[in-house]
Amino acid sequence: MSSELGTHVRVSIFGQSHAPAIGVCVDGLPAGERVDLEELAAFLSRRAPGRDDISTPRREEDRPRILCGLVDGVTCGAPLAAVIENTNTRSGDYDGLKDVPRPGHADYTAQVRYGGWQDTAGGGHFSGRLTAPLCIAGGIALQILRRRGILVGAHIWSIAGVEDRPFSPLGEPKKILENLAAAPLPVLDSQAGEKMRRRILEARSEGDSVGGVVECMVTGLPGGLGGPLFGGMESRLAAALFGIPAVKGVDFGAGFRAAEMRGSEHNDPFGIENGRVVTTTNQAGGILGGITTGMPLIFRAAFKPTPSIAKEQGSVSLSRREEERLVVRGRHDPCVVPRAVPVVEAAAALVVLDALMDSPARLPDGADWYKN
Amino acid sequence: MSSELGTHVRVSIFGQSHAPAIGVCVDGLPAGERVDLEELAAFLSRRAPGRDDISTPRREEDRPRILCGLVDGVTCGAPLAAVIENTNTRSGDYDGLKDVPRPGHADYTAQVRYGGWQDTAGGGHFSGRLTAPLCIAGGIALQILRRRGILVGAHIWSIAGVEDRPFSPLGEPKKILENLAAAPLPVLDSQAGEKMRRRILEARSEGDSVGGVVECMVTGLPGGLGGPLFGGMESRLAAALFGIPAVKGVDFGAGFRAAEMRGSEHNDPFGIENGRVVTTTNQAGGILGGITTGMPLIFRAAFKPTPSIAKEQGSVSLSRREEERLVVRGRHDPCVVPRAVPVVEAAAALVVLDALMDSPARLPDGADWYKN
Amino acid sequence: MSSELGTHVRVSIFGQSHAPAIGVCVDGLPAGERVDLEELAAFLSRRAPGRDDISTPRREEDRPRILCGLVDGVTCGAPLAAVIENTNTRSGDYDGLKDVPRPGHADYTAQVRYGGWQDTAGGGHFSGRLTAPLCIAGGIALQILRRRGILVGAHIWSIAGVEDRPFSPLGEPKKILENLAAAPLPVLDSQAGEKMRRRILEARSEGDSVGGVVECMVTGLPGGLGGPLFGGMESRLAAALFGIPAVKGVDFGAGFRAAEMRGSEHNDPFGIENGRVVTTTNQAGGILGGITTGMPLIFRAAFKPTPSIAKEQGSVSLSRREEERLVVRGRHDPCVVPRAVPVVEAAAALVVLDALMDSPARLPDGADWYKN
Amino acid sequence: MSSELGTHVRVSIFGQSHAPAIGVCVDGLPAGERVDLEELAAFLSRRAPGRDDISTPRREEDRPRILCGLVDGVTCGAPLAAVIENTNTRSGDYDGLKDVPRPGHADYTAQVRYGGWQDTAGGGHFSGRLTAPLCIAGGIALQILRRRGILVGAHIWSIAGVEDRPFSPLGEPKKILENLAAAPLPVLDSQAGEKMRRRILEARSEGDSVGGVVECMVTGLPGGLGGPLFGGMESRLAAALFGIPAVKGVDFGAGFRAAEMRGSEHNDPFGIENGRVVTTTNQAGGILGGITTGMPLIFRAAFKPTPSIAKEQGSVSLSRREEERLVVRGRHDPCVVPRAVPVVEAAAALVVLDALMDSPARLPDGADWYKN
Repeated sequence: MSSELGTHVRVSIFGQSHAPAIGVCVDGLPAGERVDLEELAAFLSRRAPGRDDISTPRREEDRPRILCGLVDGVTCGAPLAAVIENTNTRSGDYDGLKDVPRPGHADYTAQVRYGGWQDTAGGGHFSGRLTAPLCIAGGIALQILRRRGILVGAHIWSIAGVEDRPFSPLGEPKKILENLAAAPLPVLDSQAGEKMRRRILEARSEGDSVGGVVECMVTGLPGGLGGPLFGGMESRLAAALFGIPAVKGVDFGAGFRAAEMRGSEHNDPFGIENGRVVTTTNQAGGILGGITTGMPLIFRAAFKPTPSIAKEQGSVSLSRREEERLVVRGRHDPCVVPRAVPVVEAAAALVVLDALMDSPARLPDGADWYKN
Repeated sequence: MSSELGTHVRVSIFGQSHAPAIGVCVDGLPAGERVDLEELAAFLSRRAPGRDDISTPRREEDRPRILCGLVDGVTCGAPLAAVIENTNTRSGDYDGLKDVPRPGHADYTAQVRYGGWQDTAGGGHFSGRLTAPLCIAGGIALQILRRRGILVGAHIWSIAGVEDRPFSPLGEPKKILENLAAAPLPVLDSQAGEKMRRRILEARSEGDSVGGVVECMVTGLPGGLGGPLFGGMESRLAAALFGIPAVKGVDFGAGFRAAEMRGSEHNDPFGIENGRVVTTTNQAGGILGGITTGMPLIFRAAFKPTPSIAKEQGSVSLSRREEERLVVRGRHDPCVVPRAVPVVEAAAALVVLDALMDSPARLPDGADWYKN
Repeated sequence: MSSELGTHVRVSIFGQSHAPAIGVCVDGLPAGERVDLEELAAFLSRRAPGRDDISTPRREEDRPRILCGLVDGVTCGAPLAAVIENTNTRSGDYDGLKDVPRPGHADYTAQVRYGGWQDTAGGGHFSGRLTAPLCIAGGIALQILRRRGILVGAHIWSIAGVEDRPFSPLGEPKKILENLAAAPLPVLDSQAGEKMRRRILEARSEGDSVGGVVECMVTGLPGGLGGPLFGGMESRLAAALFGIPAVKGVDFGAGFRAAEMRGSEHNDPFGIENGRVVTTTNQAGGILGGITTGMPLIFRAAFKPTPSIAKEQGSVSLSRREEERLVVRGRHDPCVVPRAVPVVEAAAALVVLDALMDSPARLPDGADWYKN
Repeated sequence: MSSELGTHVRVSIFGQSHAPAIGVCVDGLPAGERVDLEELAAFLSRRAPGRDDISTPRREEDRPRILCGLVDGVTCGAPLAAVIENTNTRSGDYDGLKDVPRPGHADYTAQVRYGGWQDTAGGGHFSGRLTAPLCIAGGIALQILRRRGILVGAHIWSIAGVEDRPFSPLGEPKKILENLAAAPLPVLDSQAGEKMRRRILEARSEGDSVGGVVECMVTGLPGGLGGPLFGGMESRLAAALFGIPAVKGVDFGAGFRAAEMRGSEHNDPFGIENGRVVTTTNQAGGILGGITTGMPLIFRAAFKPTPSIAKEQGSVSLSRREEERLVVRGRHDPCVVPRAVPVVEAAAALVVLDALMDSPARLPDGADWYKN
C-alpha cells in the first residue's frame, strides 16, 4: 500500500536515510533474465550525488548488494532483494526536527501520521535517498525491457523556467537516448543546458533552490498494454511517479496543453506505416483509453524546488505552539532535477514491465501446457 | 486492478455504454452511515447530460437503483451495489468501429487489448458513461465526509484557454463551494464563464470540441492522511483521477508552476492559528511527503477536448490495412469539462474516505475492545 | 479484502439475503470466451433448494440476469456483472435477532463488527444465499476451464459419519464426474448415499441437523500453476473455500491423514507415462511446494452441521445481558452438504482460472507483440 | 501475491536456502511499538535446528539483523526489514536435482514453473529455512499482541498418530502457554511427548520420517475481528498457514470432527460471564461467520512427514525421460513438527495483528482528528 508498487512485478522499498541500510524487495520478476551488475551500477551512478559542480558534494558509494533472487547472475523466480548499507547512520540528536519542522519537508506530516515515533534523521523514510532502491529495481526492469527492444529515456524538459527542446512525439533515435543517459545534465539542446546550470548555481549562491520538469519517453512498446479506468497506463504511471519525492505534477502527451486544444488538433489520425497501424501525430502520448497505442509513450513529471535551502525560514515549535525562525544546516542539492532523471526512468520501467506481464487475454490453451 | 479503486473502501465499476446496465459495487464502507438518496440523485444530475445548451441534448434518466448494502437507508457494512439501467441498449451493427477506429478514442487500443472481442457500441466499457457509477460511489462518500466537516468542491479552472479565477489556496468559504455545486457551469468569475460558454458554442458550430482544466479543493481535512512513497495522497488521487476518461494531466498545489519557483517561494512557512499548526501559504496543496498537512488539499485535472467531433478525420481500415476517411455520427458534448466537475469531486471523495480509514497508527488498545 | 477473491480474475460478491438483489462482479475474465447461459442455469440449479426431499422445501427461482460483460454471449474483456433478484425481500421486524443472537450463526459477531448496523434479516450478507453469486462466477469459470480440458468435479465424502468411497487419487473418468454433476445426492457409492439420506431425514425429524465433508478433484490441470509460500495453490484454494459459509476444515491429498504417515509412504515417486512426467501415487493431492504437479488436484472441505435447528437453544439478550431460551423459526436444510457440492466446485474453478492467468514466467518476447 | 501476506501489516519474505541472505520486509506495522530483540532471538531459537536429539544436528546461528524500521528499538512507521546471513551459501553443483527431482519436494514443480531457472540448492526459495524470516515478522507481531493482552500459544496435537491432550476450547491459563514456549517438545502431556520422541527416533533409525499436527490457540482476542466471505478469519489464517511448507490440512474449532456432529452439539450456546457475552462451549473455535466471537480462537495445522528421507526412492531423469532411483544425501529432520510450532504461532500472530488493524467501522469522527 505505502512503500509498495505493482501488481505482477511488486516492489517493496524499505529503509530510512540514517538506518543501517536501505533496500528493495522485488517479487514477481520473470525467471531467466540476466542482470548485468556493472550496467546496474552505471545506472545507479546517474542518480548518485557529486557527479558535477551543481549537485551536493557529499559522496555516496551506493553499490547495491544483491541478497537473493539470482542464480549465477540470472533471475530464478524467487523474490530479488538488494540492500545498500548506510555508512552515514544515525548518531546525534535529531529531536530538534521533531519540535521545529522544516517547511516543505515531511517532518510535520510524519509527526502527525506516526504520532511522533517517526525517524527524523535525514528525513527518515521520506528522504530522497529512498529513490536509490527504486533505481535498483527499475534498473533491472530497464535491462529486461531493453532485451525486448523497449527503451526508456528521459531528459530535462526545463529547470527554473529554462526549457530544453521537447522530445519528438513520434520518437527519438536510440543514439539520442543513449547520449542522454551518458550526460550529467541530460538535455537535447546544450545551450539550454548551459543556461540551466547557471540558474542552478545562481540559486545556490543565494542560499536558494530551483525546480524543473523531466520528460520521459518509452519506445518500442507494443500496443495493448494497460486497461480501462483505474487500470489505465496513466493511472499506473502517475501512481509510481507521484511516489518520487518532490513530484507535484504529471501529464501525458500534450497533457495540460491539451486543455487548450481543439479536438481536431488533439485527435491523432491513424495511418499505416510498413503495414503497421500508427498514429500520424502523437498528442495522446501513446495512450488511448488507458491502453498503449504502440506509439512512443511520453509523459512529464514536474519537480518542486528542493525544500532544503540555506535561507532562514518561518516555522513553529510544536511543543510550545509558538512561531520560530529556522535555518536548515548541511549541504543540499540546489536542484534535484538532474539526479531525478534516472529515477523517472526507473519508475516508468517498473510500471511498463508490470503492464507487460498483465495480459488477461493471453490465457494459454491446453496444448501449450503439456510441453512439460 | 482495472476497474477497481481503493484499499479500504473498494470500488468496482462495471458496465458498457449499451449493455443492459452499468453499476458499481463498493465494499468496505463504514457501517451506520445514512445515505440520502435525494441528495445522491441531485449530485448525479450534475453529471447528467442535457442540463443546458452547451451539453449534448440527449436526455438520460440516470436514477440509480440500490441493490444492497443499506438497511432502512443506512449502510449495514455489507457491500453496497447500485445499478443504472441502460435504456439505450445495443442494437444494430457497430462492427464498423471495429474496422475503422475513431481517432482519440479507445476503439483501436481496445481492439488490440481484447483481441477484437471488446464491446464497441458507444465506446463499451471505455465510455464516459461509466463515470455515472463512479459518481454513485463518490456521491455516497461525499455525504460521509460532509458529516465529518470535510467538504469537496470543484470549479472550472479553464476551458479552451479562458481562465476562471483560481481557488484561494488557504480555503474558500462553504457558501462558495455550495454555489459552485448548484451552477450548470461552475465558475467563480461569471464573466469568465460567459466567455467559456461562447468558446464551447463556437467549437460546436464548427463541428469541433474544446478541452479544459478542473480545480478541486478538499477542506476540513485532518493532517496525517496518506503515507510515504506510493501510498502518498498524490499517488492515490492521481491513480483515481487518471481513471476518468479524457484526463491527461494532474497536479497538486502549485503543481507544474512549482517547477519555475525558487525553494524560498514554494516552501510554505508554518504558523500557529487558534492554537493549531497551519502553513501561512499553501503551495504544497495541502500535502507534504504524501501526507496531508491539514490545510486545504488542492489539485487540478486537465481534460483533453472531446474526441467525438463532427469533422471528417483520418483513420484506417484495420482489415484492409488502408487509410480511410471517417465521419463520426451522433450528437456529442463539444466540451466534457462542465459535466466532469462532479466526477472529479467523486473521485477525490473516494480517495479521501479510503485514506481516512487507513491509519496503521491507530491500533486499538485492549481496553477499547471489551465494550462489546 | 472481504467479499473479494482473486488476483487476475477478481470476484466481488454483493447482496444480503433479503436485500432487493444479490449478485457478483467479475473483473479480469479473458475476452473471447463464450458463456452458455443454459449450462450456467443448470449448474446453478444444483445449488438451488428444493431439489428433493432432503433439502428445504422453499423454492427459489435463481435465474441470474447478466448486466454486462458479454457481447452476443461472449466475454468482451469488460467486467461481467450478474444479479439475482430477491423476491423474498425484507419486511417485518428482524430486530429480535439483534437482541437474541442465534447460536452457530453470525448474528452476534456481525453485531460486534458492524456496531449493530448489520442486516439481520435472513442472515444478511452472511447468508448461505450468497453462494449463489459465487456459483454464477464459478459456473462461468468452469466453462472456460472445460474448454481447455480442465474438469472440476466433487462428491460427498461423508455425511454424519457415513462415508462414500473416495476419489481415486490418480483420477476419475470424465463420465463419473458427469454422473456426479447430474445427481441430487452426488456420491460414488449409491448404498452410502442411501444411508446418508436416512441420517439426514432422522436429524430433521428430531429438529436437528448434520454436517459432512465434500471431496473435490480437478483433472486435466497443467503442472506449474501456483507459487511458493502464500501464493501456493493450497493457500489460494483454502482462502476461497473457507469463504463458503459453514466450512471449518480443508485439506489436500492425504491431508490430515498425512500426519500419521511415514515419509516413505507419503512421498509420491515420479514416473514416466506416455512420455509425460507423472507421480505414481498422489498423496500430495497434485501440489508440491504450492505448485501443481499436473496430477489430479484433490482436496476436501468439512462442513459443520446447519446451525439453524428447530430445537430450543441457549442464548442471551444483548440489551439486558441475561440468558434467554431461543427457538429458531422457519424451514431449514437439515444438511447443507448436498447443495454445497457445486459451491465447492465453483470456488475451485475460480482459483484455478486465476492461477492459470498468473504466469510471471511467460513474459512475451518482442516479436509476439507486433502481430497487431 | 506469492511471498507476501497481509493487507495492513504486509509481510514480504525473500531469500533462498543458499543465497547470500534470507529476510523479510514488513510494511504497515503500527508506529511506537518497542521490539525486544532478546525476546525475538529467544523466539527464533525455538525454530532453530539442533535444540535436542530429535532434530537435525546442523547448527545455525540465525540472529537477525534489523536493517530499518526501528528508532532506538521502537517501530517508527517505516517498513521494518531484517535479514539473516546464510553462512552456508551456494557452492558446488546442484544441477543433479534439476534433472532428477526429489519426491515430495518442489524440485519438479519449480522446474516447470520457472522454466529451469529456479534455484535448486537446498530447495531454494521453497526451503523450510524461509520460515525463519516469517518468524522474525511473527515474533514482532507476538510482542505487539501480548502488550494488548492477546496471547498466542501452540502445542503438538499429535506426531505419527500419538496424541497429546487437546487444548481446552474455553482457554488455557497463561502459565501453560508459557511452559509450552519453553519446551523443546511442546506438549501438554509429557508421557505422550515421550512416546512421540520414540516414534521420531524410530523413524530416523529406519531412514524415514514422520508427520504430525499442531494445535494453536489465541486468547484475549476481542470479538468483531474478520469479516464475511473471503475476508473471514478462517480464510486469512488458512492462507497464511498453508504458506508454511509441509502443511496439508487446516481446521478450526471442532473442524473435521464437526462434520460428524449434530447441529445441537456443534452450536455453541451464548451465555453471560462477568457481564460479558461468551459462548458456553467453543466448537466454533472462536469464529462465527468469519468473525471472532471473543472466545479463544483455536485451529489445527497438519504437517506431512519430512520429504527428505534416507531411503532410496523412485524418480525420473527429466532430460532422458527415464525412471531413476534416487538417494537423498545429507542430514535432515526426521520430523519438522516440533520446530514448526513457533512458525504456526508466528503466522497466526501476523494474521491476527493484520485483522486488528482492519476495522472499517472505526472511521474517526471529526473531533478526534484535531488533536494534532
